Amino acid sequence: MASSLLTTRTQALALTPGARRRGAPPAARVCFPSGVLPRRRALCVRASVAIEKETPESEPPPTFLREDGSGAGSGSVRERFETMIRRVQGEVCAALEEADGSGKRFVEDVWSRPGGGGGISRVLQDGRVFEKAGVNVSVVYGVMPPDAYRAAKGAAAGKNGAADGQKAGPVPFFAAGISSVLHPKNPFAPTLHFNYRYFETDAPKDAPGAPKQWWFGGGTDLTPSYIIEEDVKHFHSVQKQACDKFDPSFYPKFKKWCDDYFYIKHRNERRGLGGIFFDDLNDYDQEMLLGFATECADSVVPAYIPIIERRKDTPFTEEHKAWQQLRRGRYVEFNLVYDRGTTFGLKTGGRIESILVSLPLTARWQYDHAPGEGTEEWKLLDACINPKEWL
Amino acid sequence: MASSLLTTRTQALALTPGARRRGAPPAARVCFPSGVLPRRRALCVRASVAIEKETPESEPPPTFLREDGSGAGSGSVRERFETMIRRVQGEVCAALEEADGSGKRFVEDVWSRPGGGGGISRVLQDGRVFEKAGVNVSVVYGVMPPDAYRAAKGAAAGKNGAADGQKAGPVPFFAAGISSVLHPKNPFAPTLHFNYRYFETDAPKDAPGAPKQWWFGGGTDLTPSYIIEEDVKHFHSVQKQACDKFDPSFYPKFKKWCDDYFYIKHRNERRGLGGIFFDDLNDYDQEMLLGFATECADSVVPAYIPIIERRKDTPFTEEHKAWQQLRRGRYVEFNLVYDRGTTFGLKTGGRIESILVSLPLTARWQYDHAPGEGTEEWKLLDACINPKEWL
Repeated sequence: MASSLLTTRTQALALTPGARRRGAPPAARVCFPSGVLPRRRALCVRASVAIEKETPESEPPPTFLREDGSGAGSGSVRERFETMIRRVQGEVCAALEEADGSGKRFVEDVWSRPGGGGGISRVLQDGRVFEKAGVNVSVVYGVMPPDAYRAAKGAAAGKNGAADGQKAGPVPFFAAGISSVLHPKNPFAPTLHFNYRYFETDAPKDAPGAPKQWWFGGGTDLTPSYIIEEDVKHFHSVQKQACDKFDPSFYPKFKKWCDDYFYIKHRNERRGLGGIFFDDLNDYDQEMLLGFATECADSVVPAYIPIIERRKDTPFTEEHKAWQQLRRGRYVEFNLVYDRGTTFGLKTGGRIESILVSLPLTARWQYDHAPGEGTEEWKLLDACINPKEWL
Repeated sequence: MASSLLTTRTQALALTPGARRRGAPPAARVCFPSGVLPRRRALCVRASVAIEKETPESEPPPTFLREDGSGAGSGSVRERFETMIRRVQGEVCAALEEADGSGKRFVEDVWSRPGGGGGISRVLQDGRVFEKAGVNVSVVYGVMPPDAYRAAKGAAAGKNGAADGQKAGPVPFFAAGISSVLHPKNPFAPTLHFNYRYFETDAPKDAPGAPKQWWFGGGTDLTPSYIIEEDVKHFHSVQKQACDKFDPSFYPKFKKWCDDYFYIKHRNERRGLGGIFFDDLNDYDQEMLLGFATECADSVVPAYIPIIERRKDTPFTEEHKAWQQLRRGRYVEFNLVYDRGTTFGLKTGGRIESILVSLPLTARWQYDHAPGEGTEEWKLLDACINPKEWL
């Protein structure tokens, strides 16, 4: 079954407009992992990507790359990025299964694209600790039609690609990412989302002198229903440590970016208590950014699992659960109304189950609910309205 | 507390851009009941409506109209429409309270606009039969800024209003509607939505020769989790009877319009089993259409209450409930992603609790759920994918 977790600016480009029939073959699409195309470009690209179908596979291949130039065996950034996200997928899933402790295993769906690449979706649902946990990777590449390239590049396409008025050829691209949303059952155990992605575009094939482009994006953020300061501080300090190894400006910059991105405008609330978020990052050394993305992805387990271990068996009441369910409702509102990957995926006919695996198993909307001032629920809401410095 | 049920093309025009702070005074806005502005116009209007605050009121006034020209005591269509929707609100709420049988009463919020009009929101939550039931009316009027009028009218504004190049004055408008979503607890008792609305615009005040405009919109639709043919046929036959009293073409036309409107494109599914839906209706006699809207609104109780009485105590299993919750998830998807009133209200800063009162109390998203072919769940899904003729 073709599948990829499309959250936070994952662009699942629908190649057949409109939704597909249940039971019919999956809609063909090209998956750009989260945020690899800035929004304006992505919207332009969607109209013109060529049709290609996903194929369900029985087993994950050793690599989704091929030796004929897509980067297998080359030691390239794309190859090392694939290796990293697949290793992290395995490690995160293993840690989650152990924390869940139910003996339940992630269910895996593998898919490929004839044009190049594929993905591995893993979902654990209704475990002992986790209500719903999805950890997906995808590695896709091929060529964008020239129209899509021109739309993506704007004026620069003419200048750097073909001569003005001359039609450029198809544009090679590469996109890989890992994306995950983890919703625990216990209202004192927070939801986690993370997503790391790498993208390359090449010059049109008939314009060899034009520059290549690459960029990284991603982030990890925490969405608790109750503030347990020890947990939030631990989470943010692990993010800061990862950032500080590379640039002291990263944590404050990416922490603010995260607060700004996960903003539910109609509520004037953030979805949760933030973390880090960055996009279109290419103004640093490429090796350094590969190292940074790797460090961030490797920080998921030490940032999250200790919190889960501490909170998974905390006693709770029906009122705690109802409040968690209300906050889950906010998660749904953010993802369906604002998240760029989700809204784009829905509009362009991406695989729905993959896009919406980020939604919680259960959620709640209560008319005119407002926690009493000073309550634990009020404190969480206040921190979502007025982002705090946790360190 | 200011409040109106904004579902299906209700335009709550935010007059202060952006979201408001929790605890701060409600964002000022002008409410156009559902569908009163065609979509293109509404989007243009929103940038330029003047700021005005809502005021909570302790009691509903006898009428939201004034004698100084807004239509009180005139026997006008606007006056009779207000009388009708307020009567229907009372009758529907009384019938729902009786069906609920818990002794719980609708909680009422009344609000007014200094510029003209106001509304009455009624919500019953967590009753014995109803999980969440909202029945709201609003009656608002005033003047649209000239920019909004020109945007709404397009080229005609120049021709029929002021001379080309001459700036027209503010444009009087009137908008009234009743809107309701009813979510019962029992998975065999269907959700109901209905909404009837009437709109007028006048010529700019400095262009007395220009034509007035008016139109009606609305509909009633049923969203069950299981098909009980007796119920669906009863519901549709009441809709058809109401339509047939006015024009034999209405039911087939408005039934199809309903199937087309409540379409979850990314699922290729309708939200439910339809009913009737119409908008921008003005190509019939105005008295006839007032009568038609009244007939439709009066058909809500006979169309719905007998079904609730039959199904409110039907025994059900956890599996039935889980399937209902999944279908509630679809309801959330439709309302947050597609419903014009909801999406417009969210983007323009309308009162969130009023806009989202249409969401169910609880909902569920399960990864890759597909009912087995031939099961009762499959039959419902099939009818949502392939709309049927029920009569």
